[in-house]
Amino acid sequence: MTLQELFGVELPIIQAPMAGYQGSEMAIAVSNAGGLGSLPCAMLSLQAMQTELTAIRAGTAKPFNVNFFCHATPEIDTEREAAWRKLLRPYLEEFDIELGDAPTPLRTPFSAAAADVLAAFKPAVVSFHFGLPAADLVKRAKGWGSKVLSSATTVEEALWLSRQGVDAIIAQGFEAGGHRGIFLSEDLTTQVGTFALLPQIARAVGVPVIAAGGIADAKGVAAAMSLGAAGVQPGTAFLLCPEATTSAVHRAALQSDRASHTALTNLFTGRPARGIMNRLMADLGPINAAAPAFPLAGAALAALRKKAESLGKDDFSPLWSGQNASGCREIPAAALTRSLAG
Amino acid sequence: MTLQELFGVELPIIQAPMAGYQGSEMAIAVSNAGGLGSLPCAMLSLQAMQTELTAIRAGTAKPFNVNFFCHATPEIDTEREAAWRKLLRPYLEEFDIELGDAPTPLRTPFSAAAADVLAAFKPAVVSFHFGLPAADLVKRAKGWGSKVLSSATTVEEALWLSRQGVDAIIAQGFEAGGHRGIFLSEDLTTQVGTFALLPQIARAVGVPVIAAGGIADAKGVAAAMSLGAAGVQPGTAFLLCPEATTSAVHRAALQSDRASHTALTNLFTGRPARGIMNRLMADLGPINAAAPAFPLAGAALAALRKKAESLGKDDFSPLWSGQNASGCREIPAAALTRSLAG
Repeated sequence: MTLQELFGVELPIIQAPMAGYQGSEMAIAVSNAGGLGSLPCAMLSLQAMQTELTAIRAGTAKPFNVNFFCHATPEIDTEREAAWRKLLRPYLEEFDIELGDAPTPLRTPFSAAAADVLAAFKPAVVSFHFGLPAADLVKRAKGWGSKVLSSATTVEEALWLSRQGVDAIIAQGFEAGGHRGIFLSEDLTTQVGTFALLPQIARAVGVPVIAAGGIADAKGVAAAMSLGAAGVQPGTAFLLCPEATTSAVHRAALQSDRASHTALTNLFTGRPARGIMNRLMADLGPINAAAPAFPLAGAALAALRKKAESLGKDDFSPLWSGQNASGCREIPAAALTRSLAG
Repeated sequence: MTLQELFGVELPIIQAPMAGYQGSEMAIAVSNAGGLGSLPCAMLSLQAMQTELTAIRAGTAKPFNVNFFCHATPEIDTEREAAWRKLLRPYLEEFDIELGDAPTPLRTPFSAAAADVLAAFKPAVVSFHFGLPAADLVKRAKGWGSKVLSSATTVEEALWLSRQGVDAIIAQGFEAGGHRGIFLSEDLTTQVGTFALLPQIARAVGVPVIAAGGIADAKGVAAAMSLGAAGVQPGTAFLLCPEATTSAVHRAALQSDRASHTALTNLFTGRPARGIMNRLMADLGPINAAAPAFPLAGAALAALRKKAESLGKDDFSPLWSGQNASGCREIPAAALTRSLAG
C-alpha cells in the first residue's frame, strides 16, 4: 500500500510537526495542497488544542496529522535545578533577570485528557515522538480510525515500533532538525545518518517507511524514494514559510552562513535536539550533563530567551534546524509542498 | 565532464582505499571490473609501495587510484604517552604484555620520497585524506597527469579543496567507516550526514563530487546520483570480499548484529574514525582525550590487538565500518563493483 492510499492524500509529503513553530495555519495549507499537514500539540493546552483542531476542520476537508510527545514528565530535582541555574547565573545577571521558585514544564505528553479532545476530531493520522504512549491510548487512537505513526532513530527502535503495531514508521536520520525521537537508548552514538538508516529500516519492517532528515527539495525526495521510502517528512524547509511562527532571530539564523553548523544539544529542553550553534551552545557545550531532565531544562531559559530576543539576540533561543537548511524558502507552505513533490 | 571521462573508467564506482585492509589485489580486481580500484599507502613502506604498484601495473592496464594520508607527524609527547599507557595498564596486565620504550607511528604521510616512487607509475588518480599535502607535492602529482582528489566532511572543506584546484571532491558523510577526512576543524559536531552534505557540496563547487558514507548497493548509488553525485566511493561493502585482508574477528563483527552500532572513535589512532563498538570503546568511551595524537595512539595498542586477536577477541581491534554494513557480501570485488553499478 502506498502512503497516499494509507493516509488518503495526494502527495507522499508529510509536513513535520514543529511544536512552537507552527499551528493550524500551516497544517491547513499543506493538507489543502495535497500533502499531510501536521498539528504539533506538545506545547498546547487542551483548550488551545481544541481551538486549533476546530480551525483545521474549518480550514480543510483533507486528511491531517496530529502530533504528540510521549515522554514521562519527571519529578523536579531541586539540586539539579539549582546547579543549572548556577550555570546560567552569569547570563541571568547580564540580562537582569530574576527567576521564580520552581520550573514549569513547557511541554506535556499525550494523555487520556488529550485523547478525549482528539476523539471528537478523529484525525486521519496521529503521530508520536519519543516512542509511543501507553497501549490503551494507542488503541483509542486506532479505535476511531486514525493511522498511528512514530519515529525511529535506529533499526532497533523501528523493530520495536513495528511490534507495537504502528501503521508506518518515520526513519529520523541524524541530519534531522529539532528533537531526536530516540527512546530505547540515551547513547547518541547510536544515531544513524538518513542515507544509512532509511534503507536498513525499510528492509527490516513490513510497514511503509517515511524518511526524515536532510530532505530539502524534490531531488532529496527522489533520493529517499530510491532508498526505500514510501514518503518523506521534511521540517526545516517549512521554517521560513509565512505560515510558520518562526521568530525573527531564528529566521535570520536559517538564512545566514551559520546554518551550516548545527549540533545536537540538550541545553534547551533536556533532550537532544538539533539546532544552529549559538552563544549558549558554544559556551556550555551543546551537550551538558547539568541540563535538567526533559522538558525542565527550558524553563529557566524562557525568560532569558524572551529578553535576548527582544534585543535581537538569539543567544538563548533554540534555533532548530536540520543539517540541510538549503531548502528553506520564504514561500507559502502550499507552494513548498508542491515543489517538494516535484 | 562525467567521472568516467575524467578518470577514463567505465563505471562511476571508486573502491574506497582502506589502509591495512587491502592491497593491490583488490585494486586490480575493481579496476579490471570497470571501476576505479584504489591502493592505500598510509601503512606501506616505500619499498612495499613500489612492490604493490608494480603488481598493479602487471595486473591491469586500466586506471587506478593511489591514496595517501597527509597529516603532520607529531612529536612524541612522553607525558601523554605515559597517561595513555596507564589507562591501558589493566589490559596490558590481563594479556601479559610489556610495551617497549617509545611508540612507533604506524602511518606515514605523503612525502617527496613517496612522490619519487609514484612518479614512475603515473597513476590516473591520486587521492588524499586529511586535506592536501604541500602545494609542490600536489603540483608534482598533477605534473605527471594524475587527477587529484581529496575528501571534504563539510561544505567549508569542499570550498577549501576547490580553491586548491583538486579535480574532484569526495563528500564524506557522517555515516562513512574508517577515518574522517576532517581537516579544517577538530569539532565533530561539524560532521554532516551524506544526505545533507552531498547536495550542499555539489551545489557549492564546480568539480565533480563523489559520495561516500552509507552507500551499500545499487539503490544507494542511484540515491547518491539523485543528490548530485557524479560517482560514489563505497568502502565497507568491500570488507568481506576475498581480496580484502580484513581479519577474522573483523569479518565476524561485520556479519553480526553488532554492526548496527558503530561510533566515531579516536582510541585506535588518535583521529576520529568510525568502527563497530567493542570492549575498548565501551570501557574508555569512543572518544577519550587521553589518546595520543594521530597516529601515535595505535602504537601501544598494537601488541594488545595482536594478542587478543590470536585468542579470537576483537577487544582492541579497530573494527572499521560505516553505518550501513548491509552491503557487505562475501563475493569477489569485481562482482561487487558490477553489482553496485546496477
